[in-house]
Amino acid sequence: MSLKEVGFAVSTVWVILAAILVIFMQAGFAFLEAGLTRMKNVGHIAAKNVLILAIASVVYYCVGFGMAFGDGGNGIVGGSGFFPSVDELLTIGQSPFSWFSEIPGAAGYLFEVVFAGVSLAIVWGAMAERAKLWVYFAFGVAFTVIYSVTSHWIWGGGWLFGLGMQDFAGSTVVHYQGALAALAGAILLGPRIGKFAGGRGNPIPGHNIPYAVLGTIILWFGWFGFNPGSTLAVITGDKLGYFGYVALTTNLAAAAGACSGALTARLVLKKADISMMLNGVLAALVAVTAASGFVAPWAAVLIGLVSGVIAVLGVLWVERIGIDDPIGAVAVHGMSGVWGTLATGLFAVPALTATLKTGTGGLVYTGSFHQIWIQLLGLLAVGAFTFSASFGCLWVMNKLWGIRVEPEVETSGLDVSEHGMWGYPEFYIPVPGGYGTEAHSHLLAHRHEFPPREDEEEVAEAA
Amino acid sequence: MSLKEVGFAVSTVWVILAAILVIFMQAGFAFLEAGLTRMKNVGHIAAKNVLILAIASVVYYCVGFGMAFGDGGNGIVGGSGFFPSVDELLTIGQSPFSWFSEIPGAAGYLFEVVFAGVSLAIVWGAMAERAKLWVYFAFGVAFTVIYSVTSHWIWGGGWLFGLGMQDFAGSTVVHYQGALAALAGAILLGPRIGKFAGGRGNPIPGHNIPYAVLGTIILWFGWFGFNPGSTLAVITGDKLGYFGYVALTTNLAAAAGACSGALTARLVLKKADISMMLNGVLAALVAVTAASGFVAPWAAVLIGLVSGVIAVLGVLWVERIGIDDPIGAVAVHGMSGVWGTLATGLFAVPALTATLKTGTGGLVYTGSFHQIWIQLLGLLAVGAFTFSASFGCLWVMNKLWGIRVEPEVETSGLDVSEHGMWGYPEFYIPVPGGYGTEAHSHLLAHRHEFPPREDEEEVAEAA
Amino acid sequence: MSLKEVGFAVSTVWVILAAILVIFMQAGFAFLEAGLTRMKNVGHIAAKNVLILAIASVVYYCVGFGMAFGDGGNGIVGGSGFFPSVDELLTIGQSPFSWFSEIPGAAGYLFEVVFAGVSLAIVWGAMAERAKLWVYFAFGVAFTVIYSVTSHWIWGGGWLFGLGMQDFAGSTVVHYQGALAALAGAILLGPRIGKFAGGRGNPIPGHNIPYAVLGTIILWFGWFGFNPGSTLAVITGDKLGYFGYVALTTNLAAAAGACSGALTARLVLKKADISMMLNGVLAALVAVTAASGFVAPWAAVLIGLVSGVIAVLGVLWVERIGIDDPIGAVAVHGMSGVWGTLATGLFAVPALTATLKTGTGGLVYTGSFHQIWIQLLGLLAVGAFTFSASFGCLWVMNKLWGIRVEPEVETSGLDVSEHGMWGYPEFYIPVPGGYGTEAHSHLLAHRHEFPPREDEEEVAEAA
Repeated sequence: MSLKEVGFAVSTVWVILAAILVIFMQAGFAFLEAGLTRMKNVGHIAAKNVLILAIASVVYYCVGFGMAFGDGGNGIVGGSGFFPSVDELLTIGQSPFSWFSEIPGAAGYLFEVVFAGVSLAIVWGAMAERAKLWVYFAFGVAFTVIYSVTSHWIWGGGWLFGLGMQDFAGSTVVHYQGALAALAGAILLGPRIGKFAGGRGNPIPGHNIPYAVLGTIILWFGWFGFNPGSTLAVITGDKLGYFGYVALTTNLAAAAGACSGALTARLVLKKADISMMLNGVLAALVAVTAASGFVAPWAAVLIGLVSGVIAVLGVLWVERIGIDDPIGAVAVHGMSGVWGTLATGLFAVPALTATLKTGTGGLVYTGSFHQIWIQLLGLLAVGAFTFSASFGCLWVMNKLWGIRVEPEVETSGLDVSEHGMWGYPEFYIPVPGGYGTEAHSHLLAHRHEFPPREDEEEVAEAA
Repeated sequence: MSLKEVGFAVSTVWVILAAILVIFMQAGFAFLEAGLTRMKNVGHIAAKNVLILAIASVVYYCVGFGMAFGDGGNGIVGGSGFFPSVDELLTIGQSPFSWFSEIPGAAGYLFEVVFAGVSLAIVWGAMAERAKLWVYFAFGVAFTVIYSVTSHWIWGGGWLFGLGMQDFAGSTVVHYQGALAALAGAILLGPRIGKFAGGRGNPIPGHNIPYAVLGTIILWFGWFGFNPGSTLAVITGDKLGYFGYVALTTNLAAAAGACSGALTARLVLKKADISMMLNGVLAALVAVTAASGFVAPWAAVLIGLVSGVIAVLGVLWVERIGIDDPIGAVAVHGMSGVWGTLATGLFAVPALTATLKTGTGGLVYTGSFHQIWIQLLGLLAVGAFTFSASFGCLWVMNKLWGIRVEPEVETSGLDVSEHGMWGYPEFYIPVPGGYGTEAHSHLLAHRHEFPPREDEEEVAEAA
Repeated sequence: MSLKEVGFAVSTVWVILAAILVIFMQAGFAFLEAGLTRMKNVGHIAAKNVLILAIASVVYYCVGFGMAFGDGGNGIVGGSGFFPSVDELLTIGQSPFSWFSEIPGAAGYLFEVVFAGVSLAIVWGAMAERAKLWVYFAFGVAFTVIYSVTSHWIWGGGWLFGLGMQDFAGSTVVHYQGALAALAGAILLGPRIGKFAGGRGNPIPGHNIPYAVLGTIILWFGWFGFNPGSTLAVITGDKLGYFGYVALTTNLAAAAGACSGALTARLVLKKADISMMLNGVLAALVAVTAASGFVAPWAAVLIGLVSGVIAVLGVLWVERIGIDDPIGAVAVHGMSGVWGTLATGLFAVPALTATLKTGTGGLVYTGSFHQIWIQLLGLLAVGAFTFSASFGCLWVMNKLWGIRVEPEVETSGLDVSEHGMWGYPEFYIPVPGGYGTEAHSHLLAHRHEFPPREDEEEVAEAA
């Protein structure tokens, strides 16, 4: 056991644990999305996040990991490491995964596959409550491949990496990319029944706010694997414990985003809307993802503050232009991903980026003068490729078999129609026709005027 | 501070964190079980997983850890390390816990006790919704002792260990063993009221599917401590970061099990039943538990695919033979545990098993020719001992004091009868007589035909 | 890469992961508190734990960390490290954070800020269901500053530290202190409407027991970061893996507290009240927090057993003296915090405390003869300062703007009044006037006598 080996062992412990934290983010997405949608779909929506991890894990093992990080590729795609063997997964810094210089290939796989899973979770969020179940299987496979290509461009030694694009842990690669595929899905599916009835955006409130809160805290928790784990090592260049610094900027941004989201909601909507506060947290985490390893603490706070504003205004604007995005993926992951990618170019500190020149594989800073243009070019390139590829895939699937459920299926809910079961079989569902209908709007508005139920009279008499 | 000491420190960090992940699996079992049972028992069922950890922790400290891993024992049981002292818990690789060569006794205790807790959680799952509260206390103590004996046989240097049985992280020790005690409990308790009314297996749907999903994701998350932590060190033989490889096989099997469970349910039940998909995930994790350190990635996928089928067919078969196992413990942990134990014998790769010869204590491979027969022998021996010991204990308890609650207690629910409180006191419970009755079946079938409630008419008029 | 550097890297991995576990405790508090209160406030209560982390993170970055641990201060408060820079956060063992000798300043910040967050969560628990939203913002800032001062006294080299006070991970600093501010808030706010109607303490049952169970298991899980992480290093003095020992004592105490809480509730209340069992777990964890690094396993069990009794009797006594503390913060964190602080003085083992003399910064034992008097002095000093400072702040805020919501707001719930939304918009709320009213008591008592609903008759006819 040499010193170098022990050092590698420490890095592997860190990266594996970071990957495990990111895996848990699927529980965060499951509960965030289930909480922000309706109870008739709750089982379906929670369960599809289990499927995400399943599909991404298998596809990424077979082809994705090699396409993203395999040796011997070109600027567009990796060239080896498909269906990797036991030996290939156990060696460190050797072909086909020489990219990972301090951890075995297996640890590299585990850390990278969970990012593909997060990106896919974002896509599926915007398609909630109206897509057919099989679409998730089919498009999950396609998107994992799309994701593997662009992640090679920026992280795996591809052409944007060569130009010096800075995306520490994936504001562009994971979040913005996921949001663009989400946008393609939301456009092709169209809005949920009743969402724009009467020519305006009708609120379809989430059925369980504590679920959404739990989901958000789990995501905040998991983000400490997402960003700090992206150092891929515990000693980076001449910096020891640099991953701890990344954790600090991540946390400060999220904190600022929570405050900013809550206050913006108070100003714009005249109430401290909880889901907007949660969106503020998530948008800040998305934005600081690119920046967390490159910027000073004050910049992290600023990035978070702006993200909280983007989250609230972005969600309202997406609704205004007629797109139905049930969990706000386009605003929270897309717009805030753009902001974070550009802010990295604006605020990167030479002392930090220089550190990374000598660091582990994925995090090199070339010191280009026009960093912000490189960031913009990366956004445009990834945007054009991912949106068109996703839109194309879903368009073909829609033409051939249809990707949206029938109206009566949507009305009765996906739990009973797609899975033959109820999410909460013992709770009574009082709203006829579901949310987003006129009946529902009336019900919410006049909730307190309802005549008392029989048992309430009983109680009133007795009291 | 020497290099060796730093290496031990890294291993201890890894093992302690793995143990913490496994502790969190109790939240997974709590929510999986609470979600898959009825709301009248929800507080009781969630809370008993807190008790599990409590009882196992104390009993395992007092006697279990010494019986399983203490020095100076024989092939049947360990011989020292009872009520260990401060010094015994702080030294590394010394008596009475010389078994753990790179971590202090305290870390060994923490990692091993959580496995006992998981095994006990499996037992209690099958006994849900009809056992008296004190039975959990009493049998919890007994089972922790039983578990400590068999874990000595296979992991602690006992007779099956000597024969070369391969059970990396406990498909046999933890899961199959727990399932056999669960079977004993389910047989002695008999089915819940109404489960087999009318001579057929009536579905008693779980009251909260998102809880079951959350539980499953937590278990998947925790399993990354369960299997990879079982290396008990960060450098194993000549392999660095081998635990990362174990994480990869674990993840691939779970992913395959999710897909296989969902598809099998679609084929057999004509619907993509969510609880069956979750069972597929868990069955795959159970099966790969024995195999995760010994097999190639393709074998992990295959093990997971088969497990998904076993989960669905197994649950149906257990119901058909008249055993009421509310959360499917016998199929998911028992049958899939058998499959995983045998598959390890089938698919173990010499390159991996050889690594472990020179590795840490618990993971030695003797290279026996007839490995599959050794695995089978282990299954038979553990099965005979655990089933008969558990059945015996519960039978005596039943004769003396009765282990099943009165019918009226079962009907009104264990929350109010055993704990004097409601799980959800502000929600109205609409189904008279509870699930599994004729009334309930009718209610579910005719749900949409109910006349609208008064407030629905209100709303309809207004709309 | 030197051996020393690798050792520092291991310590940083450990401390950062411990901090991440403690951050997750906010999800634990969110669900514990949401579960133990009423559904009309559920979104508000869950969401404020997101705000806690946000406010504490920013304030602690700006001034708190420097006040608690910055170099160049005096016995009362630290003197540098405000708004720390990139360089200050990345260096190890240097000004202004030379206190942290083996981890970078950023890791020190992250580990310490989460303790401030936990203390604040305790405060807000006792103020639940009747305080205005802005009060949480304003008092959150004030309390984080108060907390930073007293944590300097005991942990950051202040006057109580100089006297040799032993508080391993914060029974006094975090829990007792939080409980005293909670007491100040509960007194100034007064009881919830109906709580003491009719001159007696009326139960206001929590609306969701599984939430409370999940919260408790998350807290137990997170406590493995809280206590063992407080070693701040992986090699402490001559002890390797000492943090694993701390995890063991923590776990044993919690286990004993669960059993003791459940049995005490059974004896005193004639039922195994679930929330009392959960309180027993938490009270035991609170008490062992001071002791976990200093006492033998048997003492940890004893501390836990006594804590379980304190939790049950304490909650009942606080109610009897007319204080409405919805989640039992005063008893569980305050009384048990006092017990743990004193028990540390009683049971500390020289072999362990001596270890710490040569250990990392925060954990020195001076070997004073009258340790118990030092502990008592610390309790009195922190108690006097924190209670009076908190009471003063809240009293001024109350005089100027009022800290309690209007009665009609409290009756209709904080979700709709403060946030303009419902926590569970699709569930029907059956109890008129809310809990704690006569109507409610009657409803609970006569629950089973209600005439069947229309649909139940339907079902009965059909069956």
